[in-house]
Amino acid sequence: MKIALDAMGGDFGPPNLVAGAVMALREYRHIKKLFLVGDTKQIEAELKKHKCNDRRIAIVHATQVVDMSDRAWSAVRRKKDSSVSRAVDLVKHGEADAIVSAGHTGAAVAASMIKLRTLEGVDRPGIAAVLPTQFNVFVLVDAGANIDARPEHLLQYAIMGSVYSRHVLGYKRPRVGLISLGEEDVKGTEKTKEVFKMLKKTSLNFRGNIEGRHLFEDPVEVVVCDGFVGNVILKTCESIAVAIFKWLKAELTRSTRRKAGAFLAKHAFLAIKDKTNYEYYGGSPLLGVNGICIIAHGASTPLAIKNALRVAAESIEHQLNPHIVEEIRRYHETTASLEPAAALR
Amino acid sequence: MKIALDAMGGDFGPPNLVAGAVMALREYRHIKKLFLVGDTKQIEAELKKHKCNDRRIAIVHATQVVDMSDRAWSAVRRKKDSSVSRAVDLVKHGEADAIVSAGHTGAAVAASMIKLRTLEGVDRPGIAAVLPTQFNVFVLVDAGANIDARPEHLLQYAIMGSVYSRHVLGYKRPRVGLISLGEEDVKGTEKTKEVFKMLKKTSLNFRGNIEGRHLFEDPVEVVVCDGFVGNVILKTCESIAVAIFKWLKAELTRSTRRKAGAFLAKHAFLAIKDKTNYEYYGGSPLLGVNGICIIAHGASTPLAIKNALRVAAESIEHQLNPHIVEEIRRYHETTASLEPAAALR
Repeated sequence: MKIALDAMGGDFGPPNLVAGAVMALREYRHIKKLFLVGDTKQIEAELKKHKCNDRRIAIVHATQVVDMSDRAWSAVRRKKDSSVSRAVDLVKHGEADAIVSAGHTGAAVAASMIKLRTLEGVDRPGIAAVLPTQFNVFVLVDAGANIDARPEHLLQYAIMGSVYSRHVLGYKRPRVGLISLGEEDVKGTEKTKEVFKMLKKTSLNFRGNIEGRHLFEDPVEVVVCDGFVGNVILKTCESIAVAIFKWLKAELTRSTRRKAGAFLAKHAFLAIKDKTNYEYYGGSPLLGVNGICIIAHGASTPLAIKNALRVAAESIEHQLNPHIVEEIRRYHETTASLEPAAALR
Repeated sequence: MKIALDAMGGDFGPPNLVAGAVMALREYRHIKKLFLVGDTKQIEAELKKHKCNDRRIAIVHATQVVDMSDRAWSAVRRKKDSSVSRAVDLVKHGEADAIVSAGHTGAAVAASMIKLRTLEGVDRPGIAAVLPTQFNVFVLVDAGANIDARPEHLLQYAIMGSVYSRHVLGYKRPRVGLISLGEEDVKGTEKTKEVFKMLKKTSLNFRGNIEGRHLFEDPVEVVVCDGFVGNVILKTCESIAVAIFKWLKAELTRSTRRKAGAFLAKHAFLAIKDKTNYEYYGGSPLLGVNGICIIAHGASTPLAIKNALRVAAESIEHQLNPHIVEEIRRYHETTASLEPAAALR
């Protein structure tokens, strides 16, 4: 498989990105080609630091970078030679199967939508973020691609999230929950109520509304919400996990006795830190575009980039997109047979 | 001051509510009257358990309770003799200064809006939840009262949240942040962009957009968002804090060494647990209604109820509502003087 990495995006630029690429190439032999897209000089300098001359690497030069202050859509239109645009072009022209970017999320989404288009039957792509529970993980769709989602978009997120959970994460019959206020069927906004009705009619394993307070108690494997809410959930989780560890550290160093306790229990803290560490989850697939696009964290470490490349490889390997197209087609066929009038529209 | 407690609502009903009331009366001498509203027999039985015959208690009988499955507005209209409705009536008729309810949040909001109306200049009330950071607290408005907020509602939340932060929580010049995607001015939905512009024009200490990921790093003292998003943030925080402690407990008991460490560092864990424990924050004021209404957590313990009664007392004591009316009036005067056309509408 062939992957294109936007080697310029993200808070730390080429150093972390190239380091992650080198780690991935060492670990994943099934990556046959890795395009590093961006400023050739900077990329070469980083590769030199790692003494890496892996023949699977191909540098693709790009002169521009999308900044965090750019507007997503206009950046894609204006900066034709940006690293993210060039990376998506490689997928568009069939030279790569997937793109990974840690840069401006909106720009990666816009470039993918403009250049790759959405999959058949999908109106809007959604980002699937993977989050941990005590014994499992769940996917949250949409984690921020589409901030003005209509009910049918949320329905498509539920279908695509289920496909990802089943085919890539390996859950047999993933349960689906809809983020709402209150768990009773009657609760929510006009939009969530409409989505609720639509989901009830599908063959998905839909379990109804779910509140934020039950997210980490393993209630479902697929959590559906619009991009604004999903992004807020994702970032709030990150924020509070970081805060709790910081508070804990301050408390654990307040006395010798506590310090001794912390020393003895060190591995327990490390285990939880790992569990809540986004670096291990690596990247979030943008579900629904015609090509694999993995959105990595802006502050990605080399480890996070390595894992984002792993997620890209897994999505290609497990035929994520063909499965999505098939599921969406099946949904439309079933709905059409249930509602003959709809088929005639 | 006189407070009316809905003695029936909440997940645990009269036992926790009456126990909390008894605790509050013992601690707060400045509560001159406490109405316990609900089923007289049940309330009397609970008071007997606590051997409480405090003369400041007055039981007000109510035959109905709003269930969690009821629709908020119709429950208020249909169940005329519900404990929450009767409690709000006491405020309406001037017999009590504040109401505290741990029952159906939507019903408490609806009853307050219908019976007390909003304050002059306020279109929609918003719930102000108090959340901890390492050294401070911040208020999140709206935490779930109004799920279809318009830009002007969010502006009013910013003003009311600032008043609460200043006059009740004691922050001199509270900073205000608007929940959005990305911190740059250009980012967000059409709605958040409009609110951003409105907030820029006020005399509030507005610091721009804020992302979930910076919430717990003390960036601002007032966080503004719509009720759907606010409720999701609040419940996600609760959920992940509980999850992390659960995971930590499992890890800390996996070996004798870790158990010994946990024992030595016990007080550090307890300090963090207290910090993230909603019971200490007690209740969230519903800002903007003409009367003090405190929303307590559905799963409130007696301690949480005691603290919700404290929040009610503080809101009365610090003249929360007169200050809100004054601030909103000042805002309108300033805007009117800036935009003469608006004053003529």
